[in-house]
Amino acid sequence: MDDTSVPDIVVGRLPLYLRAIQSMHKEGQLVTSSQELGKVLGISAAQIRKDLSQFGEFGKQGTGYNIEYLCEQIQNILNVDRVWDVAVIGAGDIGSALARYQGFTNRGFRVTMVFDSNPLKIGQQEGSHIIQESAKMVGSIRKAGIKIAMIAVPADQAQIVADQLIEAGVKAILNYAPTSIAVPNDVSLQHIDPSTHLQHMTYYLD
Amino acid sequence: MDDTSVPDIVVGRLPLYLRAIQSMHKEGQLVTSSQELGKVLGISAAQIRKDLSQFGEFGKQGTGYNIEYLCEQIQNILNVDRVWDVAVIGAGDIGSALARYQGFTNRGFRVTMVFDSNPLKIGQQEGSHIIQESAKMVGSIRKAGIKIAMIAVPADQAQIVADQLIEAGVKAILNYAPTSIAVPNDVSLQHIDPSTHLQHMTYYLD
Repeated sequence: MDDTSVPDIVVGRLPLYLRAIQSMHKEGQLVTSSQELGKVLGISAAQIRKDLSQFGEFGKQGTGYNIEYLCEQIQNILNVDRVWDVAVIGAGDIGSALARYQGFTNRGFRVTMVFDSNPLKIGQQEGSHIIQESAKMVGSIRKAGIKIAMIAVPADQAQIVADQLIEAGVKAILNYAPTSIAVPNDVSLQHIDPSTHLQHMTYYLD
Repeated sequence: MDDTSVPDIVVGRLPLYLRAIQSMHKEGQLVTSSQELGKVLGISAAQIRKDLSQFGEFGKQGTGYNIEYLCEQIQNILNVDRVWDVAVIGAGDIGSALARYQGFTNRGFRVTMVFDSNPLKIGQQEGSHIIQESAKMVGSIRKAGIKIAMIAVPADQAQIVADQLIEAGVKAILNYAPTSIAVPNDVSLQHIDPSTHLQHMTYYLD
């Protein structure tokens, strides 16, 4: 098995599979099939079987997948069989929502640091976090060994913050600022921009 | 030109192209190239040329793209040469952030209605909106002719809300609840779930 040969688009579907089977697990379900998963996710059963087969043999023909086992295996593949500390940069509406977000629990993440440059916000409580000053971000993140950060600053600040995060040793950035940012090849980058999602859908509207 | 033949993955890249050239336009830039766009977006110039060629002829070999013209054309293709009214369901942290979000301006959207089921929230101000009660959601959305909604309710409420939105005539749903939901074929659906984005990236972390 050569992980580097798995297309990124396949890797990107694994979190969806994991979310679906974790939800089944929570409901007390023990076994699922590629057909059932496909129906829940709107992906063909054949695609799901093909995707999972890239990582190993997780089910038997006719008996389906053991949910607990598949859950553990995908968590292991995605490296979320542990909890990653995450830094949030920017304590505006979005950053604050992320700092208080309950949806990271059991998904492999916990926000441990929140930064902002606004003197009125620094030192304030946000969820269970005290907002720290951005000026100390690089040192604090490096010292804590944090590898993952979410950028929730205005668009014109996003690249500056990204450069600082990279300097601090961050290797995965989730960017909420509505702008593209550049990162080196050894840093992963994903964007969340509701306008791009909405525009993708309006293409199909009359 | 047969729009129905354009792969969805190509459609999904158009909003990224639009965002990049709108940003250039804002900076006063007049002309760009597939090379420059590619560098900004981390997509190959050949891919960009191929994508755009599916919709028409927008630039000349050697002279590049006129930014204002390309902007207008992509806005037209994506149906965002107008402003769409959008409903937000759920006025928790995420819904509130969306109701106040400034990033929809000039992207083709404006939030015009916010709903919640919590009696303590109904009637309260959220940004420039008064939170309305969920019980009246179907009637209000149908009466206003709103076609786009964002779901920001807890996971166990998401499918119920989606069903109501579809009943109200909504044709495009952006789902922030961390769960899959099912919609009919004539309804577009996109998900924003930070955990799935983060899990996609931790695959590449040691």
